[in-house]
Amino acid sequence: MTLPLPTRERFAPAIHLERLQRAAAEAGERGLDALLITPSRDYAYLLGYEAPLSERLTCLVVTPRDLPTLILPGLEEPLARHQLGDLADQLRIEAWDELMDPFTRVRDHLAPGSRRVAVQDQMWARFALGLQAALDPVKLVEAGAAMASLRRVKSPEEVERLRAAAAAADEVMTAITSERFSGRSEAVVSARIRELLLAAGHESADFAIVGSGPNAASPHHEPGDRVIEAGDAVVLDLGGTRSRYCSDTTRTAFVGTPPPEFAELYAVLQEAQAAACDAVRPGVPAEEVDAAARTIIDAAGYGPMFMHRTGHGIGMETHEEPYLVSGNAEGLQVGEAFSVEPGIYVAGRWGARIEDILVCTDEGGERLNRTSRDLYLVD
Amino acid sequence: MTLPLPTRERFAPAIHLERLQRAAAEAGERGLDALLITPSRDYAYLLGYEAPLSERLTCLVVTPRDLPTLILPGLEEPLARHQLGDLADQLRIEAWDELMDPFTRVRDHLAPGSRRVAVQDQMWARFALGLQAALDPVKLVEAGAAMASLRRVKSPEEVERLRAAAAAADEVMTAITSERFSGRSEAVVSARIRELLLAAGHESADFAIVGSGPNAASPHHEPGDRVIEAGDAVVLDLGGTRSRYCSDTTRTAFVGTPPPEFAELYAVLQEAQAAACDAVRPGVPAEEVDAAARTIIDAAGYGPMFMHRTGHGIGMETHEEPYLVSGNAEGLQVGEAFSVEPGIYVAGRWGARIEDILVCTDEGGERLNRTSRDLYLVD
Repeated sequence: MTLPLPTRERFAPAIHLERLQRAAAEAGERGLDALLITPSRDYAYLLGYEAPLSERLTCLVVTPRDLPTLILPGLEEPLARHQLGDLADQLRIEAWDELMDPFTRVRDHLAPGSRRVAVQDQMWARFALGLQAALDPVKLVEAGAAMASLRRVKSPEEVERLRAAAAAADEVMTAITSERFSGRSEAVVSARIRELLLAAGHESADFAIVGSGPNAASPHHEPGDRVIEAGDAVVLDLGGTRSRYCSDTTRTAFVGTPPPEFAELYAVLQEAQAAACDAVRPGVPAEEVDAAARTIIDAAGYGPMFMHRTGHGIGMETHEEPYLVSGNAEGLQVGEAFSVEPGIYVAGRWGARIEDILVCTDEGGERLNRTSRDLYLVD
Repeated sequence: MTLPLPTRERFAPAIHLERLQRAAAEAGERGLDALLITPSRDYAYLLGYEAPLSERLTCLVVTPRDLPTLILPGLEEPLARHQLGDLADQLRIEAWDELMDPFTRVRDHLAPGSRRVAVQDQMWARFALGLQAALDPVKLVEAGAAMASLRRVKSPEEVERLRAAAAAADEVMTAITSERFSGRSEAVVSARIRELLLAAGHESADFAIVGSGPNAASPHHEPGDRVIEAGDAVVLDLGGTRSRYCSDTTRTAFVGTPPPEFAELYAVLQEAQAAACDAVRPGVPAEEVDAAARTIIDAAGYGPMFMHRTGHGIGMETHEEPYLVSGNAEGLQVGEAFSVEPGIYVAGRWGARIEDILVCTDEGGERLNRTSRDLYLVD
């Protein structure tokens, strides 16, 4: 077997330079003396490559006024320069050697008198605590809001990548729902989905949830030894990363003929998911999309069985802003991409979920996933 | 193609119960009021499964006296109970719903008057900052030392898993070095190694470094489009996770006949790596193993070209304690597992590294990797 090579085409250095400049401006507007960005999707968004995340500190320091500085362990410098290419000329690069204290290097690159410094949301606590001690009396705050405001609205090129990732996931969904389910274990079907995700051009298969029978009532079920049989509902939630952008789609299958009770539940869910998709328009508060689905599910009496939010933003991460959840009154913006994925879960019995990725456009929500949202009847 | 199913056999619940008890005792001895463990290998070490790491807080609270408490989002509870099995009876499990503040739930489970609370090393900074605010005036410290003292000495069952992972990696190394290199790009060879890692029974292919020609001088090179050709040295550093334990081995190949200058460099490296392996014995300071390799490389004039430490511990993580690095005077203990991997890197030209995983036994270091440490001559 030969898997296709991962496709990680770069955006032009000019795009990353512009992102670095927007980050510096964002820091200034928020009264932050610096953004400290360790390897993460935020880092990749700004610099265009995934640096290794390890016990050795790599940290991009973005301040409102100076050139960004990349502080990294000496043994990572060749990789960084190779990956950065021309962008390296727009940065100061400072390598620390194996026996130095990297935290004081970060301190040396902050403006004197710095007071509020934001750390990347997923920075390891050991680094945050080390920085806190070295930068005292600086107050560390979360960089999440600043980074989200850079990343939540996708450029047309980013939407193109999300569209390609969604198409790849759709291919997988079409293929897997054409196969026989009964007699195979969840783990076997899940492994098959992972193969298909890679074969469809994802560079990584990030998840492949197969929840069958009573396990379909566990939204994040880990596929196990349970053998799928006639009469099972099967929730299939799959996704990967393709050209650095994520796919995520869910469909529900039924082995054999669904009993009327399940068909009724599914019809409610399908109506709720469609209503939430229809509610997407620029300016609509995120929580209204959640409410659109929830109202229908509540009215049908399944309210307590829909115990999660309706959706999450998606881009270089599977979960990012905006979140479609009660309490989030922020208006949707053109270019935001997110999932719409209500579910109904009957503990001990069965469950169902339908999930599409949508992009908010001037005309409303554009569905990137194009497979049928009907129940998939399988053998 | 059908990949083998990942093998994630569990240890018995009694083993996890004993680990939880040791963690509580460790916290007590270190004057910690609690260990806060978010999803990570520390979490999997204690509870036996990998919980999803997401923007929703999952946190195991281990205190010196009370039952451990697992605080997690409601939608993860079915998965957690399914995975925990009988171990669930030994915990308090507290689910929070989508609209609650999880940090105050953690606070409610700390003993009144708690002062020093340790957070898992890789906990996301957003959680650490949220906990810091909710637990004020508690001082957050790193849980790393406490967790490392639980995990650094491997049980015989753990060594068995490391041995199986190493054997799987050796299979991959034997297979890849039997193939033709010239005319293939680094990325193609790397993708092939990832296939082989999965085919050999790893549940994940974690890395597959292929650094050819001048790229062999970049210790953590990301394989790219460079086409391998006659006269190239090629550093192959590969590893995956098998039954939750990691493999990691490096060999160096040469396409065609190595010039005397490279052969000489390689002979020095091989001698240095063997000397470091021979230096392993219980009680020997970790830095002495580093020095054993470094002295030989220095004496041959290559000192500045060996810019990283000699090794890192390995277990459920590829990099963990103990680190074989100058300044680490801790004595090696029977049951510790670590890499021994000196390298020599000549910028712009070529490089070489040899890496084995060893376990410290009463008799010295047991090499888990068994492939030849000679230079691999390939076409």
